[in-house]
Amino acid sequence: MGSCCERMGPQKNTYVRVSLPAVCFVWQIAMIILFGVFIRYDEESSATWPEYRDKKNLTDIENDFYFRYPSFQDVHVMIFVGFGFLMTFLKRYCYGGAGFTFLIASFGLQWALLMQGWFHSLDLTTGKISIGVESLINADFCCAGSLIAFGALLGKVSPVQLMVVTLFGVTLFAVEEYIILDLLHCRDAGGSMVIHCFGGYYGLAISWVLYRPNLHQSKRLHGSSYHSDLFAMIGTLFLWMFWPSFNSAITDHGDGQHRAAINTYIALASSVLTSFAISSMAQKKGKLDMVHVQNATLAGAVAMGTAAEFMITPYGSLIVGFCMGIISVFGYLFITPFFEKYLKLQDTCGIHNLHALPGMLGGFIGAVVAAAATEEVYSEQGLINVFDKTGVYADRDQGTQGGFQAAGTCVSIAFGLVGGALVGLILKFPIWGDPADDNCFDDEAYWELPEEDEETIPPVL
Amino acid sequence: MGSCCERMGPQKNTYVRVSLPAVCFVWQIAMIILFGVFIRYDEESSATWPEYRDKKNLTDIENDFYFRYPSFQDVHVMIFVGFGFLMTFLKRYCYGGAGFTFLIASFGLQWALLMQGWFHSLDLTTGKISIGVESLINADFCCAGSLIAFGALLGKVSPVQLMVVTLFGVTLFAVEEYIILDLLHCRDAGGSMVIHCFGGYYGLAISWVLYRPNLHQSKRLHGSSYHSDLFAMIGTLFLWMFWPSFNSAITDHGDGQHRAAINTYIALASSVLTSFAISSMAQKKGKLDMVHVQNATLAGAVAMGTAAEFMITPYGSLIVGFCMGIISVFGYLFITPFFEKYLKLQDTCGIHNLHALPGMLGGFIGAVVAAAATEEVYSEQGLINVFDKTGVYADRDQGTQGGFQAAGTCVSIAFGLVGGALVGLILKFPIWGDPADDNCFDDEAYWELPEEDEETIPPVL
Amino acid sequence: MGSCCERMGPQKNTYVRVSLPAVCFVWQIAMIILFGVFIRYDEESSATWPEYRDKKNLTDIENDFYFRYPSFQDVHVMIFVGFGFLMTFLKRYCYGGAGFTFLIASFGLQWALLMQGWFHSLDLTTGKISIGVESLINADFCCAGSLIAFGALLGKVSPVQLMVVTLFGVTLFAVEEYIILDLLHCRDAGGSMVIHCFGGYYGLAISWVLYRPNLHQSKRLHGSSYHSDLFAMIGTLFLWMFWPSFNSAITDHGDGQHRAAINTYIALASSVLTSFAISSMAQKKGKLDMVHVQNATLAGAVAMGTAAEFMITPYGSLIVGFCMGIISVFGYLFITPFFEKYLKLQDTCGIHNLHALPGMLGGFIGAVVAAAATEEVYSEQGLINVFDKTGVYADRDQGTQGGFQAAGTCVSIAFGLVGGALVGLILKFPIWGDPADDNCFDDEAYWELPEEDEETIPPVL
Repeated sequence: MGSCCERMGPQKNTYVRVSLPAVCFVWQIAMIILFGVFIRYDEESSATWPEYRDKKNLTDIENDFYFRYPSFQDVHVMIFVGFGFLMTFLKRYCYGGAGFTFLIASFGLQWALLMQGWFHSLDLTTGKISIGVESLINADFCCAGSLIAFGALLGKVSPVQLMVVTLFGVTLFAVEEYIILDLLHCRDAGGSMVIHCFGGYYGLAISWVLYRPNLHQSKRLHGSSYHSDLFAMIGTLFLWMFWPSFNSAITDHGDGQHRAAINTYIALASSVLTSFAISSMAQKKGKLDMVHVQNATLAGAVAMGTAAEFMITPYGSLIVGFCMGIISVFGYLFITPFFEKYLKLQDTCGIHNLHALPGMLGGFIGAVVAAAATEEVYSEQGLINVFDKTGVYADRDQGTQGGFQAAGTCVSIAFGLVGGALVGLILKFPIWGDPADDNCFDDEAYWELPEEDEETIPPVL
Repeated sequence: MGSCCERMGPQKNTYVRVSLPAVCFVWQIAMIILFGVFIRYDEESSATWPEYRDKKNLTDIENDFYFRYPSFQDVHVMIFVGFGFLMTFLKRYCYGGAGFTFLIASFGLQWALLMQGWFHSLDLTTGKISIGVESLINADFCCAGSLIAFGALLGKVSPVQLMVVTLFGVTLFAVEEYIILDLLHCRDAGGSMVIHCFGGYYGLAISWVLYRPNLHQSKRLHGSSYHSDLFAMIGTLFLWMFWPSFNSAITDHGDGQHRAAINTYIALASSVLTSFAISSMAQKKGKLDMVHVQNATLAGAVAMGTAAEFMITPYGSLIVGFCMGIISVFGYLFITPFFEKYLKLQDTCGIHNLHALPGMLGGFIGAVVAAAATEEVYSEQGLINVFDKTGVYADRDQGTQGGFQAAGTCVSIAFGLVGGALVGLILKFPIWGDPADDNCFDDEAYWELPEEDEETIPPVL
Repeated sequence: MGSCCERMGPQKNTYVRVSLPAVCFVWQIAMIILFGVFIRYDEESSATWPEYRDKKNLTDIENDFYFRYPSFQDVHVMIFVGFGFLMTFLKRYCYGGAGFTFLIASFGLQWALLMQGWFHSLDLTTGKISIGVESLINADFCCAGSLIAFGALLGKVSPVQLMVVTLFGVTLFAVEEYIILDLLHCRDAGGSMVIHCFGGYYGLAISWVLYRPNLHQSKRLHGSSYHSDLFAMIGTLFLWMFWPSFNSAITDHGDGQHRAAINTYIALASSVLTSFAISSMAQKKGKLDMVHVQNATLAGAVAMGTAAEFMITPYGSLIVGFCMGIISVFGYLFITPFFEKYLKLQDTCGIHNLHALPGMLGGFIGAVVAAAATEEVYSEQGLINVFDKTGVYADRDQGTQGGFQAAGTCVSIAFGLVGGALVGLILKFPIWGDPADDNCFDDEAYWELPEEDEETIPPVL
């Protein structure tokens, strides 16, 4: 059986031996030059810290490193193991799922340090960007947007295309983030708007432009295997467990980080129960579907990205998680097939149901909770801290803040859709080495595979 | 070959399409209502923290979040990845092992926040429970008891039954914890007594009531595969690595957390060597058994759950680990088969050898170490801090404390056995959708499985 | 098919039923005795901390535990899951890779607490060694040297031999570390010299002495499978993600830890891009090789082990990572085959390319960066802190410091090569139960394997 159905080998258009190294080298060298020109240590990571510390009357433990490093490492795990392994659920695209995540996040975080630095922490007198642990967290966040987009494209694009997706994804991210957080003065610590909503619609728009009418030719590989689903559970669980750190990583010291972690923890627990419930109800024998368990269980945290730092109350968090688990499973059951059939939109991982929709809803939830904030609940100082009511924003009332939060959500959707459509057009050029329709979802195209395994691959029918 | 031995499909009694969603929805809605009535942020996670901080003359870094959050995240990983993946060792019950852990721990932690809140932190003037990061750790701990019980039942019960096990498990846990920690004023930071001893005997009692005389009909699935054992090693290692955080997560700030982590780290290292040694000695060709490597290596930490925060000394920790590795492997070799043959007690994961017995011994070790504590070793203030000798307990001498510790261990056993027997009886009603004897240890019953894998399942003989 | 090619069973010389338990028991008992004589809690982990704290005018959060415990846990994960799973890439030696790592690191860390204690923290008045969280980190580091050596020997030695490798590896490590850090007063927080360079050459020298001319008889098992490569990616990613913690775990409080983490994070990102690039260029169809992705991506962090705490600048870190990714992949492509063919040196995991060479280069990079340090960049106090210019070293100029750093690198190479050769000779005695040439890379030799899998093992040809 092994001999009569020999693998056809990669299509000739998946040849990336020139383009992939070229992109990696040129962009990495550009990074080195730009880092050399722009990037420096900030006062807390420079050897001059002892002087700064004494001048500010701080102690070593008050270095921002100790406030944020544990959260940073959790976020880092979410990006590389969480996203990476979540994308190993396909039976024959595990290397691509984990490996390309590794590649594009490693590029993306460098580019993010620059882009976010230019927009947020460029010292105009020296022309330098100062980085510290919070910059690293933000860089990881910024990559998340592009990794979400990767979820819609999984198995259908080349690594060179993914590098392009990341280059533009990070660039667009930095701009929309600047508009939303700085110009509109929204709060969005866990990124419902700037990360999930943007990343989701960005990926969906790209995937829509790159529609493949004959993708069914790869149908034999468009599913999971028993063990690939278990590898994906590693990704799911690390995302699920560390999401409280994600939503609290860059919130205010003290109560801000504390409350965001609690709210996210609670919302996630609630999502799990409703995801399991709807998944079981949807199958005629009541059996659970791994796709729902792997994805919908996380939707509560996505929708808490904006509101987690607010006084949404523990039961408020439970309600958000409750609804999101339901909505997300419904998305997998009805919206994704609808998109594929009627909108010509192929969304491999169902990012619409895990990121785009819950992110958008999270933005609006944040708007409502912000609008409802009162001095009675937050205390005077608390309200100032949580909504950063300083400078010109000191007198903005909460209703207005809510309106701006809602506007921010719309900005992120617009950036995602328009940016994604444009990037999709760029990716249509026939120079990127993407696989043919009958060669999608197959690591064979870009990876040297162990020989002996070949006999266990289902033959091309 | 694939066609002649078609899977028989799930037995009709494993139909949970009504009961599982019903339980999830009703209980989750109950959680929302109860959270709404009772649960609020504590002073360190509320937006009013700046006022509280200034009043108490603290700085942001002294928010309890920074003392405990890294440990919390480690504990969280132990619960979901540690316990979850440890239970994937069966060749065909990996989804159930990881997935049901995910479900019941997500429910359990919500119920635990309420139950523990009512018993430990209900403010009688306001009628509210205040939660912070320590509450989250305790909630995770509380789930651990039910997850241990799951270990004895793995593969033989339905997810609905597991939800019932968790509901009662968390309830009983909160009561016995209140008796042991508050009424008897025992110290048990890592939960040898309240978590492992209770959880172990709880699960064993349930399993004893649910004895299946014809379980051998599922024998073909009652074993591991090469890769399922490797997935289980992920669980083992994350439990092993993070156990120092487990035992130190809620100990005193400063030396308490520091010492508990060191003691547990040392005890675990010692357990590994003796587990490997006995495992090799027990096989006639000296080969190692993965079951021992996955489980007995952890026994040292279970037995240090009470004593880890005491001045047990580093070599004392080594001795505890040394003995527990031996005892635990002997348990797998002799006690588990004995239980199955003579006590009609089927213990899938051997929780007796990893949790019940080491937990009980850990309780008594803690009693001895507490009784032997002297002011010379601990210093006056140290003794007060470690044993919380305040209020009416200020004059309790160490011998008495040791006696109470031993009594606490007995309380946890009693709660486990009696509570487990009662819950077992409830689970015998024929309404819970549990699998038939020839359908145990099979994900087919409750999960939609990837199609192509079916041919690799060993046929029913 | 399953019946005609029955496994031959383990060779008779892999019988370790006496030797493995004997070594484990005797050495573990020795540890208990030596811990009893020597090891005590330090002032920060003893119950007397409240007195010490008040005397020094500290607060609980300034206990070293809170500065270092999160990093410690990350390092702990790197040792047990990182190294352990990185070594599961062979299709049929996954148990050995993860399991023996577990065993030898658990022994090594105990022995390291003693050896490092005698050399670094023995109180000569009391004759005791005081341990705290920093000791645990150093003990884990010390194990890393022996685990690196294991990488060269993977699949070719018995667990008893690995215990011997660890016993001598830890001993040699403590001595060379004492010479390099104390006598030469080098700085090497992340261990480019003392860990990677030493460990790499130690393993290579052992492997060279143990050369097996007929190793090709195990060729059928000397490769990966699709899933074993994915398990190895778990190891890779946890090493990659947590390496910033590794390099910053024992650096100075405040800026030292902060800067080391940032530099390592940046260098690693850069290594990933060049590793992917060269890997793709090297294959005639441009396909990526998992071996390179699993290993070379980490080389940047190895080479930053010394310089990470210095003011190497962010772009300097990028350049180091850039070069190391290239060098490491070239190593896998050309140097490892060259070693095997011409030097009779079999290096299973290619530790030369990941540890020995990048470690050596990291030592020299550290020397150059140290020599180039100026008060202008570091500030006066900064220079004193970073290079510990106190006591007799207060006046050592930076050029001299650079020279000593380079000398330290040479010391580590010499210790590795000479020590490894001697240990190799010890391991040649025919008493250790190592496998025959046609039985290498096979878990069958030392592990009880699940039965049903046997039919999927490729037959002996």
